[in-house]
Amino acid sequence: MFFQIIDILGTVAFAVSGVLVAMNKRMDLFGVLIIAFVTAVGGGTLRDMLIGQTPVSWMTNMTYVYVIFGATILAIILKDKINYLRTSLFLFDTIGIGLYTVVGIEKGIQAELHPIICIALGTMTACFGGVIRDILCNEIPVVFRKEIYATACILGGLTYFLLREFMNDTNFVFVIAGLIVIIVRLLAVKLKISLPNLYRDK
Amino acid sequence: MFFQIIDILGTVAFAVSGVLVAMNKRMDLFGVLIIAFVTAVGGGTLRDMLIGQTPVSWMTNMTYVYVIFGATILAIILKDKINYLRTSLFLFDTIGIGLYTVVGIEKGIQAELHPIICIALGTMTACFGGVIRDILCNEIPVVFRKEIYATACILGGLTYFLLREFMNDTNFVFVIAGLIVIIVRLLAVKLKISLPNLYRDK
Amino acid sequence: MFFQIIDILGTVAFAVSGVLVAMNKRMDLFGVLIIAFVTAVGGGTLRDMLIGQTPVSWMTNMTYVYVIFGATILAIILKDKINYLRTSLFLFDTIGIGLYTVVGIEKGIQAELHPIICIALGTMTACFGGVIRDILCNEIPVVFRKEIYATACILGGLTYFLLREFMNDTNFVFVIAGLIVIIVRLLAVKLKISLPNLYRDK
Repeated sequence: MFFQIIDILGTVAFAVSGVLVAMNKRMDLFGVLIIAFVTAVGGGTLRDMLIGQTPVSWMTNMTYVYVIFGATILAIILKDKINYLRTSLFLFDTIGIGLYTVVGIEKGIQAELHPIICIALGTMTACFGGVIRDILCNEIPVVFRKEIYATACILGGLTYFLLREFMNDTNFVFVIAGLIVIIVRLLAVKLKISLPNLYRDK
Repeated sequence: MFFQIIDILGTVAFAVSGVLVAMNKRMDLFGVLIIAFVTAVGGGTLRDMLIGQTPVSWMTNMTYVYVIFGATILAIILKDKINYLRTSLFLFDTIGIGLYTVVGIEKGIQAELHPIICIALGTMTACFGGVIRDILCNEIPVVFRKEIYATACILGGLTYFLLREFMNDTNFVFVIAGLIVIIVRLLAVKLKISLPNLYRDK
Repeated sequence: MFFQIIDILGTVAFAVSGVLVAMNKRMDLFGVLIIAFVTAVGGGTLRDMLIGQTPVSWMTNMTYVYVIFGATILAIILKDKINYLRTSLFLFDTIGIGLYTVVGIEKGIQAELHPIICIALGTMTACFGGVIRDILCNEIPVVFRKEIYATACILGGLTYFLLREFMNDTNFVFVIAGLIVIIVRLLAVKLKISLPNLYRDK
């Protein structure tokens, strides 16, 4: 129940971020809905296709569909007020990637994949919805350029596998790893830390 | 036989639309061929990957390959005359999305998915070839911005599931739903209806 | 052993080409790593998803992960000297597509697909990593516009199926087809041959 609420909050935050980007690109209602949907479920969809768990998860769980649809409609109606919600949405989004990261890792473990691959799946689950959103909107994905978003997921994933060496309570490890993702992301934004840019001329 | 002819006409129309976009982007012969191919089969391919029906359908039915190859070569040869065919191509395309929508819905029903997911699969089958074409050509997908294309597919899908409540003859429902897609699209173009643009400033 | 070394050299060349493109786009470390990864394994990943061989191959063979990670770090460190390595990298890349083409064809044959589809899978394995790299970097894929890259793969694939009619030693045919890809590509670059551009006005 607790995780389910977090999951829904994360989905709402992702969907709304999609709505905002799509509206800035002057898309019509259908376009906005698709971008919201893809932002929210794109990472998990790619993960499921790569490991062969099909039909992909949102197809067999209508909750996502209803939540994304509702969030999109609300975001469109409240579009002028959404700036006031920016802090809440940032928090939802941050909590969302923490959860999505651990969900992705769990799926990798269930498929008996190598820990590095599991961490990659967790990061993908959290970050690739935004990547596909940006590609559909004809932008270079923001996660490749500006933010410490993915790094937080990777650190959370490493924490997960490190702690599992010492602890048997996987639910507890699950929560700690998700919190690491959230804390790293919050600290990075607070302290304006970002990864080095590798551009060569200067 | 009748459906097969419609299928081939739709495939031709989609492939030719790919050829035209690719030639405008100054692609070479290989690029044009790939864009034609992706436009024609991309939607069904994504659908098959999402529901896990692999190898995806065009890999086990060479008809598509030959039709797309032939249509591409013809379109390149006749490129200066293709403007005269614009109306025919528009009709083929419209008939094509009607058929593709219903084919996608059928696949979803076979995979025992929720009606909303089935409608999404139908719309995806009809529209996502064009989306992938536009991404490969570095454009924001036109279906997200300008046309009532996807809406026609969604309305056709809703019709399908509504009528199935009352009718047992699924073939008949199949045809009606496809016709709804076609009629909505024709009316929308005729009456210049489009979805509201949600851009916020003004 | 011999093929494994070629495979690693090809993977290195693909990864480094990704690093260079990503650094020119001013991506951060995470972005550069993802682009390197996608360039090296993207074609094979798409192939595996299309034929339903999941988890896709790099998920169950950590060699690729380590090689790509190492090549990326080295390329970033040596970025100022990479121009001197350009000829070596071009050769690795060319040998790589020769091998990747034949690997893709083999996978198609194992899945009992039509020769034309097998050739498409081979070409996809060799070329689509670069296509995905270019899409993620917001460019029209270079393989659709400028080079005779894909044509070399297709000719190698045709050679494979022609020779198999007359020869029983599939390993030998494997090598010959790969060499055809390499030779065609080298000749095309040497003689500045490229596919005709089909742009219509003039």
